[in-house]
Amino acid sequence: MAEDNKIGTYEFVAEPFHVDFTGRLTMGVLGNHLLNCAGFHADERGFGIATLNENHYTWVLSRLAIELDDMPRAYQKFSVQTWVENVYRLFTDRNFAILDAEGNPIGYARSVWAMISMETRKPADLLTLHGGGITGYVCDKECPIDRPGRIKVGEGETVGEHQVRYSDIDLNGHVNSIKYIEHILDLFPMEMFRERSVRRFEMAYVAESYYGDRLTFCREQKSGNEYDIEVKKNGTEVVVRSKVIFN
Amino acid sequence: MAEDNKIGTYEFVAEPFHVDFTGRLTMGVLGNHLLNCAGFHADERGFGIATLNENHYTWVLSRLAIELDDMPRAYQKFSVQTWVENVYRLFTDRNFAILDAEGNPIGYARSVWAMISMETRKPADLLTLHGGGITGYVCDKECPIDRPGRIKVGEGETVGEHQVRYSDIDLNGHVNSIKYIEHILDLFPMEMFRERSVRRFEMAYVAESYYGDRLTFCREQKSGNEYDIEVKKNGTEVVVRSKVIFN
Repeated sequence: MAEDNKIGTYEFVAEPFHVDFTGRLTMGVLGNHLLNCAGFHADERGFGIATLNENHYTWVLSRLAIELDDMPRAYQKFSVQTWVENVYRLFTDRNFAILDAEGNPIGYARSVWAMISMETRKPADLLTLHGGGITGYVCDKECPIDRPGRIKVGEGETVGEHQVRYSDIDLNGHVNSIKYIEHILDLFPMEMFRERSVRRFEMAYVAESYYGDRLTFCREQKSGNEYDIEVKKNGTEVVVRSKVIFN
Repeated sequence: MAEDNKIGTYEFVAEPFHVDFTGRLTMGVLGNHLLNCAGFHADERGFGIATLNENHYTWVLSRLAIELDDMPRAYQKFSVQTWVENVYRLFTDRNFAILDAEGNPIGYARSVWAMISMETRKPADLLTLHGGGITGYVCDKECPIDRPGRIKVGEGETVGEHQVRYSDIDLNGHVNSIKYIEHILDLFPMEMFRERSVRRFEMAYVAESYYGDRLTFCREQKSGNEYDIEVKKNGTEVVVRSKVIFN
């Protein structure tokens, strides 16, 4: 297969209500675009949600890491490229490049996905899916950022609490993957974003949370610019872990 | 001027993370699309933010009323039409139609805007702006929903509180117009959205709120399906009022 058909490219504009007070696209909106691009790319190649749903399978996001030199500003055009880096039996690695209006990369992202049966919630074997068709899209385009690492919150401090509400919940009845990103960045004061933008942001999705769950946010400062966050529901079960590294 | 140049039409798809747990587009996302369409339509005709900013003026949303028979579902295409209904000295009325994938109207919206000087914060005279050019776009397309009415919360009950955070704040340093919509709908339990969708939603933007402000949400049930909400900052000043009518 030609390499250029393996990479999907999608065009965007940074909408005025999708930027923060510094005029830069928010991490949540960028995350939403990346997940949409993953969906477009998979759909166009026959392994998207729409096709899978017929077979009662769905994609589940396990890890996401975004690293940026810059962010699009309000009204600026940008584009996202996405491709499949690896396919294993239970996981697939999908990477992204974020390009500015001139087509220069301003950031990259890595994501790890599993596929599960919506009936049994058990993972599916990606190597046999559609006769192994997904492996034909594996592409060796470079993604020059670190893989998502292990996030471990030891001596953290509880810095926030949130009762899950209507607007947090997605089509599947779970808290929306993107909403966690917003809630986690909201743990930091405005000055952090004024003085130092986010250089790297990681999410590890561990379990689902639901309407009415009480989320607690525990944060540990790992170094001057680096924070690990653990989100638990109802005081016990970990739902997501995150790492935020500021410039 | 030909009537068809007076109406702007913009195409959308209901993105998977932009729908609620019932699979319907959220009111906040629809509101964001309406405001973007207002911007596109004005920009394309020479009275948008980009042109205005050169002259140190900006549009300020004063009122928004949305009334719907239906909402687009996840992955469905829809479109938004927008046009100027009236131009007065200090305000202009801009209307919207929301059309399903077949082009049939499923809802309408009305909005009221003022233009202010970014230096003095004083309103500008719309009738003299660009030699009165905006009045040339007034269009008599029908908008069969009531105008935004007066919202008065008398004997309300405080049903929510929110400390303004990083993700609430927009490019202008104020709480994002759309974020109020999310916070207001979050005052209602999930059952309301499961059993009865929102038929009409009104916002009156009265004052700005800022990072760190403590917003309190006071709600009065006007009838079985109708609620008025008043949002105050720091216990005193009203920032927005809203009316929510469920089916």
